Amino acid sequence: MEHKTALKRLNLLKGHVNSSIDARREASTATFDLAHAQEVLWSILPEGYFDALECASELHGLQDPSLHFDDRDKLRENSYDYLFGLINKMFEKGYTSPEKIAENIDHFCFTINSPGFFDLHASTRFMSHTALYSKTIKNLGTERHHDILMESLAFKTIGCFCLTELGHGSNAKGLETTATYDKNAQEFVINSPTQTSMKFWIGNLGKTAHNAVVLAQLLIEKNGKLVNKGVHCFEFQIRDEQTHIPLPGIEIGDCGMKKGLDGIDNGWMKFNEYRIPREALLNRFGDVTPEGEYKTDIPSDGKRFATSMSALSGGRISVLASTSGLSLWACTVALRFSAVRQQFGPAENETRILDYPLQQHRLIPKFAQSLIFMTGANKVMDLFLKNSSKLFEPGNIQTDVLHSLSSNMKSFITLKSQETIADCRRACGGHGFSFYSLFENMLQYNDIHCTWEGDNHVLRMQTMNFMLKMMKLASQGKSLPQTLEYLALGQFDRPKFSGSVSNTDDLLLMMREVACYQAIKAATKLSSCGLPIIEAFEKYQHFELKQMCETYNDTFLHDNFNELLAKFSCEKTKAVFEKLFLLSMTLTIYENPSVYMLVLGEDNFDKIDENIQDLCAQLRPEIIELTKVLPIPNRANGALGNEDLQVYKRLVQHFTVTEGVTERSNWWKKMYQNR
Amino acid sequence: MEHKTALKRLNLLKGHVNSSIDARREASTATFDLAHAQEVLWSILPEGYFDALECASELHGLQDPSLHFDDRDKLRENSYDYLFGLINKMFEKGYTSPEKIAENIDHFCFTINSPGFFDLHASTRFMSHTALYSKTIKNLGTERHHDILMESLAFKTIGCFCLTELGHGSNAKGLETTATYDKNAQEFVINSPTQTSMKFWIGNLGKTAHNAVVLAQLLIEKNGKLVNKGVHCFEFQIRDEQTHIPLPGIEIGDCGMKKGLDGIDNGWMKFNEYRIPREALLNRFGDVTPEGEYKTDIPSDGKRFATSMSALSGGRISVLASTSGLSLWACTVALRFSAVRQQFGPAENETRILDYPLQQHRLIPKFAQSLIFMTGANKVMDLFLKNSSKLFEPGNIQTDVLHSLSSNMKSFITLKSQETIADCRRACGGHGFSFYSLFENMLQYNDIHCTWEGDNHVLRMQTMNFMLKMMKLASQGKSLPQTLEYLALGQFDRPKFSGSVSNTDDLLLMMREVACYQAIKAATKLSSCGLPIIEAFEKYQHFELKQMCETYNDTFLHDNFNELLAKFSCEKTKAVFEKLFLLSMTLTIYENPSVYMLVLGEDNFDKIDENIQDLCAQLRPEIIELTKVLPIPNRANGALGNEDLQVYKRLVQHFTVTEGVTERSNWWKKMYQNR
Repeated sequence: MEHKTALKRLNLLKGHVNSSIDARREASTATFDLAHAQEVLWSILPEGYFDALECASELHGLQDPSLHFDDRDKLRENSYDYLFGLINKMFEKGYTSPEKIAENIDHFCFTINSPGFFDLHASTRFMSHTALYSKTIKNLGTERHHDILMESLAFKTIGCFCLTELGHGSNAKGLETTATYDKNAQEFVINSPTQTSMKFWIGNLGKTAHNAVVLAQLLIEKNGKLVNKGVHCFEFQIRDEQTHIPLPGIEIGDCGMKKGLDGIDNGWMKFNEYRIPREALLNRFGDVTPEGEYKTDIPSDGKRFATSMSALSGGRISVLASTSGLSLWACTVALRFSAVRQQFGPAENETRILDYPLQQHRLIPKFAQSLIFMTGANKVMDLFLKNSSKLFEPGNIQTDVLHSLSSNMKSFITLKSQETIADCRRACGGHGFSFYSLFENMLQYNDIHCTWEGDNHVLRMQTMNFMLKMMKLASQGKSLPQTLEYLALGQFDRPKFSGSVSNTDDLLLMMREVACYQAIKAATKLSSCGLPIIEAFEKYQHFELKQMCETYNDTFLHDNFNELLAKFSCEKTKAVFEKLFLLSMTLTIYENPSVYMLVLGEDNFDKIDENIQDLCAQLRPEIIELTKVLPIPNRANGALGNEDLQVYKRLVQHFTVTEGVTERSNWWKKMYQNR
Repeated sequence: MEHKTALKRLNLLKGHVNSSIDARREASTATFDLAHAQEVLWSILPEGYFDALECASELHGLQDPSLHFDDRDKLRENSYDYLFGLINKMFEKGYTSPEKIAENIDHFCFTINSPGFFDLHASTRFMSHTALYSKTIKNLGTERHHDILMESLAFKTIGCFCLTELGHGSNAKGLETTATYDKNAQEFVINSPTQTSMKFWIGNLGKTAHNAVVLAQLLIEKNGKLVNKGVHCFEFQIRDEQTHIPLPGIEIGDCGMKKGLDGIDNGWMKFNEYRIPREALLNRFGDVTPEGEYKTDIPSDGKRFATSMSALSGGRISVLASTSGLSLWACTVALRFSAVRQQFGPAENETRILDYPLQQHRLIPKFAQSLIFMTGANKVMDLFLKNSSKLFEPGNIQTDVLHSLSSNMKSFITLKSQETIADCRRACGGHGFSFYSLFENMLQYNDIHCTWEGDNHVLRMQTMNFMLKMMKLASQGKSLPQTLEYLALGQFDRPKFSGSVSNTDDLLLMMREVACYQAIKAATKLSSCGLPIIEAFEKYQHFELKQMCETYNDTFLHDNFNELLAKFSCEKTKAVFEKLFLLSMTLTIYENPSVYMLVLGEDNFDKIDENIQDLCAQLRPEIIELTKVLPIPNRANGALGNEDLQVYKRLVQHFTVTEGVTERSNWWKKMYQNR
């Protein structure tokens, strides 16, 4: 109900789309109920999700072409202005408040994801501040950190989260920055002992942040020796509030040009015996007394660190929402362009490229897959929010389930999304290479998703480990988490498919059986190869273990969408989404022959490709209307993807906002120097 | 011999590499002879290839970090300066001259390719001018165009080549620009009749070009009616030589921001009854008499157009050289970084990531594949140069062979290179996201290769058509072009592999048999499905026909490298390159299970992955030395890929050249507005 109202407001905000002949033609062939579809698809999104999008739509921002600067400093200022504009609008409208955010920071971060699809610069600044800096204070701090937490949630103090260093990323336990306790002064002394220990890639640090949460090795003197208590978090001010210049003992700089996302001021920071008060330690799980005694309820260093970091899963789930949204956005733009672009065919009225089976094959299956990704991401977001209050409970298996599920999904979906966006760009030919198509932004936004919040390969290894544990449970007949119940199927031999490749139930059952078979196959290889476990793991991680993870991902996503299908009450609408569902499963099989070929057999496998084409042809009349299911603000669709389908007019409009388009260059006289 | 000297000079130019411990360690484990390897690998490159690279190395350019501007106009000025610096240096050193270029423009363009790997901005400006503008004048013009040709080859007049329009790319025959002959004035009147007819994406047009070759529909009055004689080329001046402002009747602008390559001034142009003399028509294959009669030796409009355009294949072959070079360059950078980056393992001396099987698996096979691509591209370059004088000979089958071969290679290699570069960027984690890693440049350079010189999908269809023709010849027992001789194997059933998956001869024979089988399978499907040919073609183009093309590509590339292997006289060196060869074949099989799984059988296919890992481990001690085979100027390797392996030092050096790194932003006071 909540969503229905917000969606309506949002659709109204798009204003009167000056429908072109093309737009009317495409709308007229669709047979489903768009509002009903939106209601079903987005039913489990967190409350307030579309409110944030509404606020973003009202702001000048969201990829408005006049805000594309060549100038990096301008880009950063713009993304800062946008961030402040957005949060102040949300406060004004009463959609949220510092107190409400404090209640559930994850919930707030997920709602703020939606505008993030279309502007990862500002959204990343939001996340660095709220989901990393503020949330760490909330999770790891105590009463003494309450005021700084509330100041940050009122956006009076902007913070950054300093984990990575020049030499360390994935291996957070190996950080080199030190915090040595000086009991005489009751202070910690922060130091950067080596070149590789400088904090690096820190979002909001380069130009913006007032304060920082810094991760450092905590060193305490004991019997005249320094003892390392492992990595801890410290919160403190880093810039002078009168001049915004780094405080003495701190050196701060900008990481320079990046392959995109230059609206984020990633920075580096070096400490030279910088002193902070003892209370700067975020002391929920471990504290230092004034006398320099270390106190903790979790004696194991490793376990304490893991507990401290466990709430960061939320960031990974935001990535899932963002990457699948980017994928769907790219398909939207490419499909709309293809419904207008004409090439070859009768000279007077050339064929629209989307009417060629070739172009349909390039785009429609990817659209289906992106939608399945996105609804899967929403499901994980929902699961996380339902469990977020219990994340720190010892022995809560849901924490591990969510961690491994989201890690696995991130490792596959971010990569597939990257391919999809790149395919969409290429499917638009030269015009896809225009900046105003926005594909470059999408590619850059999504590319970094493959790296941050955990490298995809490292994350997948963690899922492998967890699944192998679950296999053991399954073999002992113990109960399994819901997403992995299929492991109990006991599929020791490769399943033989006897159903129809056009039947979604048959395919879904096969997917589950295959997923179980691949897991058993992988576990058997590991245990029977006679190698030590680490070597065995390395030997099979690219093949059997990867297939185990991939089929887990495929099964989860399609099981989830299948449940969603049951919620459609309009039969016509349901029929369209069933086709998308079948198409996504078919594409999944087509893309993974080394898993499915021997299960389906050659004849069935050959049919798979034909089914893709048939489904594309059936969905062609629906597809442009389908691109409206995600209510993307029109401004965010760039030159090629506007709902009104006026592609050429908008392309010309867009490049005219760039300065100096019809002027001579400053160096034109050089053109005559050789004469 | 020629190459040997140039290579030596080039290696010397790199200067004394201040070898780090890392660099010495890596060099010490290699067992092959680098100079011998270079001599063999690059033996068929066109004369002068390394001369161009030497001149480029001497220039300030080639990705020097201090030349990375945020400012587009600066980027363009810089690429213009670089272009002129390079050509003037080549003239000065006597490496070439306008007369020498005129003798064989293709040869010149291929030699100029080499610096282009590392700076596609300047290289594209070169190509737009020389390979498109000047070459079209030479190929399609006559004596009356001699002076303007020589002026262009002396780089006194810079030109552009105006084919694409806002509404037309691949379908060049459908262009809308018109050239109407006015016999009273003996002039052509050039017009842009619609919005979509504006010339668009034209390189060098936005800010630079003095003159243009424009493609337009030639309209001639006959009996009071305008008759369309099809698309023709016209050469004329477009800007005033005193002011550099477009001449009256011409409107020129810039296409605005792109997804990269902003050093190229792509532009648009609109004509409003712009008049040019009759002699502006490039009249080799078709002419208009002063009285307005059309004369030609090739009566068919379609054939005449095809002949006119046939020499443009050279551009596609340049793309092959560039895309495979980019792929190899990316691997070079990622491998060198991975030999230094440490993560996890013993705390005091963490493991170098390249010593993990995971990282080896990500990078070493791609290096092998890229090398096989590059030597294949060189082979096609050689074939083209040997045939370029005969390209216009009617019925010369080599023209079709080269067209279909290069089209096919482009469609697969550009895409695989893009994946490789993206994989390399991700394999370097966050530091791969730094601009100074240069991966973004590589991705942008290569991305456009997928689109220009013919969209990959359209090109592949042309190969499909040609192969089906050759299948017919094969079935009639007629002789086949060398690259397609395998079609005569008569492999009607799927081959059964009985050899060893570790034996290159066995695998190569299998590849040929499979390629023949896939072609026969595709042709049989087409002829037996009972559909009209166009529909049948559309039905099977994504699967059977694509597999036919892909196996053709794989066979050609590996056959070619196999021939090259025979040229190694040093056994130790040969052994290393044989491993790379086997690894590339193994990766090819691994990446295409829907073709090879049923041929090899499940057990063999499982071995394939293990073989990849074993070969990676065997090549690990050689691989950093192997990255030196392509003599990439050190400056071009960015922050992460320098031969001296001083990664962190250089990364820090690089970002310090960016302006304002440690300064406050202009808008810092905004940071306190909420307080």
